[in-house]
Amino acid sequence: MTAAPIQSREVRLKSRPEGIPSVDDFAVASVTLDPPGRGQVQVRNRWMSVDPYMRGRMTTQKSYLPPFQIDAPLEGAAIGEVVASNFAGLQPGDLVQSMLGWREAFNAPGLVVQKLPGEDLPPEAYLGVAGLPGLTAYAGLVKVAGIKAGEVVFVSAAAGAVGSAACQIAKIYGATVIGSAGREDKCAFLREIGVDHVINYREQHDLTAALAEVAPNGIDVYFDNVGGAHLEAALANAKTFARFPLCGMISRYTAADARGPANILLANQKSLRLEGFMVSSYFHLMPEFVRIMAGWVGSGQVKSRQTVDEGIDQAPVALVKLFTGDNVGKMLVKLS
Amino acid sequence: MTAAPIQSREVRLKSRPEGIPSVDDFAVASVTLDPPGRGQVQVRNRWMSVDPYMRGRMTTQKSYLPPFQIDAPLEGAAIGEVVASNFAGLQPGDLVQSMLGWREAFNAPGLVVQKLPGEDLPPEAYLGVAGLPGLTAYAGLVKVAGIKAGEVVFVSAAAGAVGSAACQIAKIYGATVIGSAGREDKCAFLREIGVDHVINYREQHDLTAALAEVAPNGIDVYFDNVGGAHLEAALANAKTFARFPLCGMISRYTAADARGPANILLANQKSLRLEGFMVSSYFHLMPEFVRIMAGWVGSGQVKSRQTVDEGIDQAPVALVKLFTGDNVGKMLVKLS
Repeated sequence: MTAAPIQSREVRLKSRPEGIPSVDDFAVASVTLDPPGRGQVQVRNRWMSVDPYMRGRMTTQKSYLPPFQIDAPLEGAAIGEVVASNFAGLQPGDLVQSMLGWREAFNAPGLVVQKLPGEDLPPEAYLGVAGLPGLTAYAGLVKVAGIKAGEVVFVSAAAGAVGSAACQIAKIYGATVIGSAGREDKCAFLREIGVDHVINYREQHDLTAALAEVAPNGIDVYFDNVGGAHLEAALANAKTFARFPLCGMISRYTAADARGPANILLANQKSLRLEGFMVSSYFHLMPEFVRIMAGWVGSGQVKSRQTVDEGIDQAPVALVKLFTGDNVGKMLVKLS
Repeated sequence: MTAAPIQSREVRLKSRPEGIPSVDDFAVASVTLDPPGRGQVQVRNRWMSVDPYMRGRMTTQKSYLPPFQIDAPLEGAAIGEVVASNFAGLQPGDLVQSMLGWREAFNAPGLVVQKLPGEDLPPEAYLGVAGLPGLTAYAGLVKVAGIKAGEVVFVSAAAGAVGSAACQIAKIYGATVIGSAGREDKCAFLREIGVDHVINYREQHDLTAALAEVAPNGIDVYFDNVGGAHLEAALANAKTFARFPLCGMISRYTAADARGPANILLANQKSLRLEGFMVSSYFHLMPEFVRIMAGWVGSGQVKSRQTVDEGIDQAPVALVKLFTGDNVGKMLVKLS
């Protein structure tokens, strides 16, 4: 049992970013943590998740999660180790997941952290392929889109945490997969994980034509992570009755020039289903999903890739990278 | 049996319209009809349906129906009377429905026309509330949106054939209904048929605010007939998990400045389902639907309103009216 107060550094929101966040929008500060109180645990974070949806919480806009407060620490998924416990269900040494990332350590009621499932996976996988990004991909393809063998699936931001999981799950379900990314190393990663057709969208002046070339008969499913020109290209190339799980629109989060898809009428003319979804609607699938994914990872059918920055001081840099496209796979911050 | 050839006038496409069609895009010509051949019937049209989707067929764009050909007659739903028959299943005097409108009379195989169901309805109702517009409204609300009692339903182009059927069906299902239209007589009609909140969108500089005022807790269903600013207002006011049956986007058919919904990101953030549909996917429901609708019309729960122009010469004018918004309810052409 840790008896003395400890120091923990944390990342705070200093100002609400306009467009792409900059490191100046954040500050790292130090706080003193007393020993954990009654029913509490003290956790030292080992891995922190860096996620696109956090951009939404940096605004004051009403959304599905409350806005981050100025001068308060950010929040996000993290894996940590229990270092002291006044909670019966957890012991020092236990690895736990929480939403209390963006800080080196914290005290919290034992009930708000979850012990990691006992699957044969590295701890950080629970922030990636076997965590919310993986579940997001699974729910979007399997539950929202109802993916079927033999279909053609287009995935944008395909080299990201959600996108790369979606590509691999679609392959496992027997689909032909088209993935788009904006950098050559990301495209190489996509080829490595078996994506059938890789589009480097930064090299295309006409994304609609590029998609038509690799999907001459059209696409059945568009897994949308970016919105914008990708969504327009998918609408233009959709088969009748195609399904579009709308997972996130990273291009919209920071777009000063917010422009909707000009060809939205095609949704009507081709009987398309565009369905936005939040992974939170599918939390009940998590236990089933973790078991399935552990099997896929074990058999080599799903590979995970991370971009890892080290130390709390680097966390704001890691966050910015996500919006400048400078990560491949899951963006993580590793703490010592 | 008619033994001699007869004259029939028909409406032809003269030029492909840009934007809103003009009467100059059409020509009325006369053709000679021989007596019907083997297995054929000769039908004299009594009522011709004028529908928004026809605008799409005036372009060369690939769509769910082939384009109209220049100098060939238009096609569309019509109710006519068999005047001569060489087909065992039909007798002179039978009322039939066909897709061979836009002409006074025609010969066709008996198999391509359908005898009207024997419900207690005026014949022209089979082009409106008990026909494809009615089925479109029913399928969109009941099958696509899965409307439930107590929900808030917003309908655009609410005074049109599909819109007014949708408003009344939504009321029957126990919804609170908001309808928008662009002229005072249309708004009066909407109040007459029990629409709870009527928005004259031409009098609103901010449709989003106007919708928020009458639906302070948001909308559950948006039945989209117009796209554009209405779709944006609906996205802005949607509750989480709202459903948008996309039935048609009349504002898009003729819009030179095609602009997509700038707030499409909300579809993702609020887990919305936008689902385009074609009534043709629901043709199998027609027999069930006609029985249900005949009951609703009989009990006075559904009222139908028509705007009727008379004579084949007026047909191009009737078509133009649809796109200038100069019709209330179902737009029909009556032939003598």
